[in-house]
Amino acid sequence: MLDSLFRPRSVAVIGASTKDLSIGNRVIKNLIDFGFTGAVYPVNPSADEVRGIKAYKSILDCPDDIDVVHMVIPAKFVPQAVEDCGQKGVKHIIINSGGFSETGSEGAAIEKDFLARAQRYGIRILGPNCQGIINSDAAIRAYCNFTFTKPDPGFISIVALSGGVAEVVHQAFAQMGVGTRIYASNGNAVDVSIPEILRYLGDDDGTRVIVTYVEGLRDPANFMRTAAAVAARKPILAMKAGRTREGAKAAASHTGGLAKEDIATDLIFKKAGILSFRDEGHLIQAAAAFATQPIPKGNRVGIITNTGGPAVIATDVLVGAGCTLPLLSETTRAFLKATLYPEASVGNPVDVLATGTAQHYRACMDVMMQDDSFDCVFINFVTPFFVDNESIAREIVAVNQQRRKPMVCNLMTDKQQWSGVVNILRDGGVPCYPLPGEAARAMAALVQYHVLRSREKEAVQRFSDVKPDKARKIVDKARSTGRNSLAAAEVYGILDAYRIPVAKWRLAATPAEAAAAAAKIGFPVVVKADAASVVHKSDMGGVALNLSSASAVRNAVAQMRKAIIAPDLRFFVQKYLPDGLELIMGAKAEEGLGHAVVFGLGGIYVEVMQDVVFNLTPVSATEAREMLAAIKGAPLLQGVRGQKGVDQDRLTGILQRLSQLLTDLPEIQEMDLNPIKAFADKVFVVDARISIK
Amino acid sequence: MLDSLFRPRSVAVIGASTKDLSIGNRVIKNLIDFGFTGAVYPVNPSADEVRGIKAYKSILDCPDDIDVVHMVIPAKFVPQAVEDCGQKGVKHIIINSGGFSETGSEGAAIEKDFLARAQRYGIRILGPNCQGIINSDAAIRAYCNFTFTKPDPGFISIVALSGGVAEVVHQAFAQMGVGTRIYASNGNAVDVSIPEILRYLGDDDGTRVIVTYVEGLRDPANFMRTAAAVAARKPILAMKAGRTREGAKAAASHTGGLAKEDIATDLIFKKAGILSFRDEGHLIQAAAAFATQPIPKGNRVGIITNTGGPAVIATDVLVGAGCTLPLLSETTRAFLKATLYPEASVGNPVDVLATGTAQHYRACMDVMMQDDSFDCVFINFVTPFFVDNESIAREIVAVNQQRRKPMVCNLMTDKQQWSGVVNILRDGGVPCYPLPGEAARAMAALVQYHVLRSREKEAVQRFSDVKPDKARKIVDKARSTGRNSLAAAEVYGILDAYRIPVAKWRLAATPAEAAAAAAKIGFPVVVKADAASVVHKSDMGGVALNLSSASAVRNAVAQMRKAIIAPDLRFFVQKYLPDGLELIMGAKAEEGLGHAVVFGLGGIYVEVMQDVVFNLTPVSATEAREMLAAIKGAPLLQGVRGQKGVDQDRLTGILQRLSQLLTDLPEIQEMDLNPIKAFADKVFVVDARISIK
Repeated sequence: MLDSLFRPRSVAVIGASTKDLSIGNRVIKNLIDFGFTGAVYPVNPSADEVRGIKAYKSILDCPDDIDVVHMVIPAKFVPQAVEDCGQKGVKHIIINSGGFSETGSEGAAIEKDFLARAQRYGIRILGPNCQGIINSDAAIRAYCNFTFTKPDPGFISIVALSGGVAEVVHQAFAQMGVGTRIYASNGNAVDVSIPEILRYLGDDDGTRVIVTYVEGLRDPANFMRTAAAVAARKPILAMKAGRTREGAKAAASHTGGLAKEDIATDLIFKKAGILSFRDEGHLIQAAAAFATQPIPKGNRVGIITNTGGPAVIATDVLVGAGCTLPLLSETTRAFLKATLYPEASVGNPVDVLATGTAQHYRACMDVMMQDDSFDCVFINFVTPFFVDNESIAREIVAVNQQRRKPMVCNLMTDKQQWSGVVNILRDGGVPCYPLPGEAARAMAALVQYHVLRSREKEAVQRFSDVKPDKARKIVDKARSTGRNSLAAAEVYGILDAYRIPVAKWRLAATPAEAAAAAAKIGFPVVVKADAASVVHKSDMGGVALNLSSASAVRNAVAQMRKAIIAPDLRFFVQKYLPDGLELIMGAKAEEGLGHAVVFGLGGIYVEVMQDVVFNLTPVSATEAREMLAAIKGAPLLQGVRGQKGVDQDRLTGILQRLSQLLTDLPEIQEMDLNPIKAFADKVFVVDARISIK
Repeated sequence: MLDSLFRPRSVAVIGASTKDLSIGNRVIKNLIDFGFTGAVYPVNPSADEVRGIKAYKSILDCPDDIDVVHMVIPAKFVPQAVEDCGQKGVKHIIINSGGFSETGSEGAAIEKDFLARAQRYGIRILGPNCQGIINSDAAIRAYCNFTFTKPDPGFISIVALSGGVAEVVHQAFAQMGVGTRIYASNGNAVDVSIPEILRYLGDDDGTRVIVTYVEGLRDPANFMRTAAAVAARKPILAMKAGRTREGAKAAASHTGGLAKEDIATDLIFKKAGILSFRDEGHLIQAAAAFATQPIPKGNRVGIITNTGGPAVIATDVLVGAGCTLPLLSETTRAFLKATLYPEASVGNPVDVLATGTAQHYRACMDVMMQDDSFDCVFINFVTPFFVDNESIAREIVAVNQQRRKPMVCNLMTDKQQWSGVVNILRDGGVPCYPLPGEAARAMAALVQYHVLRSREKEAVQRFSDVKPDKARKIVDKARSTGRNSLAAAEVYGILDAYRIPVAKWRLAATPAEAAAAAAKIGFPVVVKADAASVVHKSDMGGVALNLSSASAVRNAVAQMRKAIIAPDLRFFVQKYLPDGLELIMGAKAEEGLGHAVVFGLGGIYVEVMQDVVFNLTPVSATEAREMLAAIKGAPLLQGVRGQKGVDQDRLTGILQRLSQLLTDLPEIQEMDLNPIKAFADKVFVVDARISIK
């Protein structure tokens, strides 16, 4: 569908200009300079030619079929120009001009107008208020864009609404000497969307890795679905900005959107299998590695170096990012001892010394490529004047081109003095970085993607021992009475329908009933006043903990009756569980995405520590286990200091049941299971709240 | 003292070589190429000239006084050559050769030999096994070094034992177009030390900022003392590597040192007022800002941008690092509204739009420089082809040269196409970065240094209500009996001497005595078996908590007597405090530095969360308060969820008393006050251990 946008045979520019410093001129210059393989048609009512190319009065006069039209004309002329394009049978229009919805209601009306016309003719629109696209494929060389970065052909494609960041990223690749494939920035994105472009890049064989930047998602569900499908085939590396309140505000001010901090984007990235970055530099450096390197099969890195300190830095970064540095086998050590200089250090890192030769590097690389104990090879390479650095570079390239295991290189050199070395490594597809930390983080990203990709892909379990009808009835009844917040008995009824265990409870209307209920439940109990009209039960004396006798229960209820006057006042009697590990689960509806589910340690300490982890529904068994493992307090679940751990299988089951419940009841807006008490062999929800829409 | 090392008038090279790829040749080439302003004397027994310069058979034949000699000869010839230098009256020797202590005992003996000879003649040695020094001062141009980075003159000086990392950092500045001043890498550092060089750089007016890299410190106390004195006058930016166990191992393997993780280096950095970095890239980027920018007076940043997304990224990074983005005043907004394009966004960030002109940028900069609400100005500057970018660059430079407030610039450009812009900004001393995150982190580092520098410098309080003699006696007595671990009564005696409050306690020998003690203390109590021979009291049933009656105490003691057979068995009866916030304090001797002191939340949760903070003795009142504020659980100290906080004044007092105790008793190796129970109006140590040397 987008093929003729990204691989056009002909490009016309409506608003082509003879003025050097205008976009209508620049786009034509860029097409020419970049060596566009198709035809270029300037459209200008008064000029005969633009940049030496014959110009036409109208798009209708162009003698050819037009795949892509650039529009660089004031907003108010766009609808008619779109109409003309429709007549002409144009396939795509890139609207570079601004002045549409980003400026207010008048512009929005024009946007609506031209979009309707385009749709009538089946024309696809990129933009408006956008940069356009670039395709560096030698068969195309389309620079349908007014920016200034002229990429070498490469394997990285870039897509973002924000032209500013897309261009920064693009520029960074160019300065690193890393080629790019397709570039697309679609501004207001009224028609061709980010997910649609992602899908196209997923199908594009020349794209090995996709880089994207977002400040928020227009259609999160569609984005997630598409990204997940694409990410299953090739890596997507993404960064989300506007993470701080101030950042979100800045994002809103330049996109005209609403300022809001969101956690959903991160969850979508995770769920879709997108590798997420918080630093655009790290993203760029990682992408350069993904462009040429295979994905490792594990996290075990071998380091080869000819200088000490930078290997220490690389080691710190790799280990800090979850990689390990296996020891060399005895045989390998003996072999390297005999091959390298006597003073060389044959550990991991292997230090071949500054005087180390190409043969020394080669021996180390061969050993690590052959040895199954290593998944990746990290090269530190400083270029001393007294060795044959170009030969070392050639050996690195030779091993890299075997594509057995991923390699990255911290090349510590003067790019001017040692341009030969730089060129050999670049042309040989070795990702090179000037700092050890950068190279190490790029390698760590490859490993992290391996971990992401090797996550068990399993169907989400649907429990059959549940009673969705019962839960549905409870929710429908509450909705029919216009209530947003459910009563405790309703909440527990829903949990019960999904077999989420709740500490034993009964409802009572009088002190005597409460005492009888307590006896059935077994002491100690807690008594809570329950009435739709009572919101802050505990503030009003409506909660009595740890009641150990019938008389204590009767007294507590009698006191509550005095303190709280409500016609629907009842008493909720529940088993009191003083021990157990306090946990929380919860959920919040995310528009179009289901629910964000939270899990964490409960209690006052952890309220302060905020040790929680999020996921999106539906939650699979693996994801539930990952959630348990992801909190900092995970050792408490497993048991520390000789204490027994808690029933983690039951907890993962509850998370999955909670997920099923939320999927069945999309009306649930917020849900809190807080606290949950977990024991070695059982788990109980002790308090819970649900609000519905 | 080091002046003639860093500003030599004459350099001789013993081991000067006619072979191009030898260090003995390269050093001479580097001196010539870099434009050394002094005389160069190759010393070679057989060559008449080296690189066109007359060579001498012996250092004794050189016709001039020699400030610096390079030695590039095998280790075994070095002692005699040093002897010759002594005869000649040479001031400094840079020994580039290796083969000394880093290779084993034989080399170590040679090292000892030449050092003794040098000292006899008053010659100072840099190295051996080192790169040497560089001084880019136009009056000197000394490249006494065999590396390949030729720096432009600048204001950053670099010093490190590790030549590998020093060179990487140096190279990075050169690639950024940032000049450097003095470079020194001293390898084995048998004589001229890092602290000595730091002191020299502190006195060097041309050095505005010092960059250093360490993997460990030879003489921590000296380093800290010197660094603190220097850092009081100019910024020191440092990175420590070998942070992970594996990294420490890698560091040990290339320095021949011992692998150990240390926390002391970080504490030394903090105590000395050194800005510490964990990422060499961040350090480099920050140094470039320190080189030309004034230190801000606060953390309030104004952002000016001509593109949206990159300003969002910068905002996230700045806010995440503790900066704030104040709003523009109404007057300012109105003024900018009238000055900028109508579509411009006059918030903070101010977006002048891609079409924004030099006048627009200037207006925004002037406003932020004048307005007292801003401490720093952050510029985002992409170079669209359709505006006069060089004029914008010139305005940025003009404002920068006022040096009113620090500025950094995220310059998003193609350095080749827009070399004019790049050069204007570089020559104008504007620190430029290609990525918004990099620029923002550099700015944040300026702000962090401001915070560091404005810490209250106060004398450490010495409490006069203490009894150091009493504590000294306890320690001396234990040492005289050869014990390393103190008995509970001794520990509490020491705490008592420093008026660190301990939960009431008494010692008892029999069940009856214990019951009587408990009655005096007040119930409930805890009873602990106490005997030098009993290490794992609690494992052997030697601890009984929460005893509420005399009979319970008697029974507990009787049982312990059965379970634990020890001639010196006594019973430690102490007030039981079931409530209160559980905290820990502790200390560990750090060779040459006093003690590292730790403070944190106690209990099982926090054992898992490891929410602790360290400092070095002596601890001032401000530092103690900073420690309390630095733990993640700090809100618990202040009080959360309506709970009362704890007595923080008393806690800071205890930390200071602990510090005084440790200073008076340097024999203490380790000390644990765990737990400490803190209440709204009091604090008690509940259990404590001390081990001595």
